Amino acid sequence: MSVLISGTVALDSVETPFGKKDNILGGSAVHAAVSAGFFTPTSIVSIVGEDFPKEHLDFLEDRKIDTSGIKRVKGQTFRWSGYYEYDMNQAHTRDTKLNVLTEFDPKLNDSQKKSDFVFLANLDPEIQLKIISGLNKPKFVAADTMDFWIKSSREKLHEVIRKVDFILMNESEVRMFMETPNLPLAAKRLLEMGTRAVIIKQGEHGALLFTQNFHFSAPSYPQEAFRDPTGAGDSFAGGFIGYLARTGDLSDGNLRRAVIMGSVMASFNIEDFSLDRMRRLKIREIMERFEEFRKFSEFEALSVAHWV
Amino acid sequence: MSVLISGTVALDSVETPFGKKDNILGGSAVHAAVSAGFFTPTSIVSIVGEDFPKEHLDFLEDRKIDTSGIKRVKGQTFRWSGYYEYDMNQAHTRDTKLNVLTEFDPKLNDSQKKSDFVFLANLDPEIQLKIISGLNKPKFVAADTMDFWIKSSREKLHEVIRKVDFILMNESEVRMFMETPNLPLAAKRLLEMGTRAVIIKQGEHGALLFTQNFHFSAPSYPQEAFRDPTGAGDSFAGGFIGYLARTGDLSDGNLRRAVIMGSVMASFNIEDFSLDRMRRLKIREIMERFEEFRKFSEFEALSVAHWV
Repeated sequence: MSVLISGTVALDSVETPFGKKDNILGGSAVHAAVSAGFFTPTSIVSIVGEDFPKEHLDFLEDRKIDTSGIKRVKGQTFRWSGYYEYDMNQAHTRDTKLNVLTEFDPKLNDSQKKSDFVFLANLDPEIQLKIISGLNKPKFVAADTMDFWIKSSREKLHEVIRKVDFILMNESEVRMFMETPNLPLAAKRLLEMGTRAVIIKQGEHGALLFTQNFHFSAPSYPQEAFRDPTGAGDSFAGGFIGYLARTGDLSDGNLRRAVIMGSVMASFNIEDFSLDRMRRLKIREIMERFEEFRKFSEFEALSVAHWV
Repeated sequence: MSVLISGTVALDSVETPFGKKDNILGGSAVHAAVSAGFFTPTSIVSIVGEDFPKEHLDFLEDRKIDTSGIKRVKGQTFRWSGYYEYDMNQAHTRDTKLNVLTEFDPKLNDSQKKSDFVFLANLDPEIQLKIISGLNKPKFVAADTMDFWIKSSREKLHEVIRKVDFILMNESEVRMFMETPNLPLAAKRLLEMGTRAVIIKQGEHGALLFTQNFHFSAPSYPQEAFRDPTGAGDSFAGGFIGYLARTGDLSDGNLRRAVIMGSVMASFNIEDFSLDRMRRLKIREIMERFEEFRKFSEFEALSVAHWV
């Protein structure tokens, strides 16, 4: 089944201890769509300015990502500029220029309306709600958000959470939003608001999945190659929903695998700047790393012989 | 097989968002020994002042922990006073009074010298080396340390690492000591120094085990009951080495289980102040939580059917 992704299409300027790149392809919808695109047909709804290089659209189309929902309007493309310190866990924003994003009024085309799997990357909750209202009985909708909306649009964000199946948030955002440092408690409060499941992204420390029935802890990946964390969370979300859409299986066991697949895709994305690692990535490598995750996190039950 | 533990026996004053307790039983050797004592006969080498309450020694002896190596001398017992903020990941020290600890000159008795499993909790590396030199062919020695010694006794700490089988450190300490944010790289550098394995403790985010042959990521535990983190790292170490000593099995698979057992014991310890949760803890609960760790971290391999 196909995936629809809304979010930003951006030109990023990023500095990390491993280099500095200006005006590179970025944006939450791009990172999520390229990741999901490894698994299933994917379509984007977003907006760019007239300055957006055609080569980036060609790159997406070459990967069979449907870009017909990326509206091109007069003005400049959304731009984010930031840097990472040595530990790279925290992005520091230098500048955000919304540009044409302020005019973004998402209209889904007919095929997008019928999407079964939808990921609403971080955007104004008002826009996320508008996209939800344009959907025709989707099977599965997931949404991400960020601290800015928690502070400025708490009520609208509540409405988003009530309407989606899955909510994805960073650890620090969940704590801020639910006003407790206790993650299981914060997840419980989110579930009580009406979402079916909560994914807490912990960066290099892995991810947690909470539903009414079970909890799952995905392990941290021992990342040696690590050049630019930008887009990690969206690559995670794209891998997660892309894998679910491909398998069409929403069982508890497959949700666990989907969280691992999200972790796998994020671990690749951060190995290079922009989408550069994704450009070279092969399905075989994805499957191998998934198996690597299994190998380095499995352990056997206690032997009863030791306790009698 | 029995375990020998060196470290502090202390009177702590602790404040967390859940309460404030003065002069409660604490110390790295106490937390580690009580944890290890659930699995195997355990003995402590440490020092206390004449003010140390007899009830605390009685408590240890009631648990069959050999306290004959805890020397009682004139003066005051080691005291630590500190507090935790709301997120409880970081201890803030108000005051440390070394008191009789400055006179600690560890002498092992005959049975301690023959210990097979030894855990050197955080102490001056010079004292850790002295204990190592008093041992008669131990099977397995593990050591912990802290940022203070990394800064002040780097050379001696190198010597400790060369002489022990396992080194345990917090994530931030490993990064500081090996001068890289990259944990797999930091672990590699520690392994090159001569230790057989490295355990990186990540607090609520779990733990990592690195050896020459393999890497293991232990999951984070979704902790709801959480009152006082003091002693979590030492409870981890005690559970880890106590379990290894009980099973006598140093295979890769059992090392993984031992890391989980350490996480299990730490997760109990932080549920209440001082050793209070450990006083009530039953072996049955330990085994159940171990199985719980397995259940919330396991996932199945990819189905090949989805990829053809």
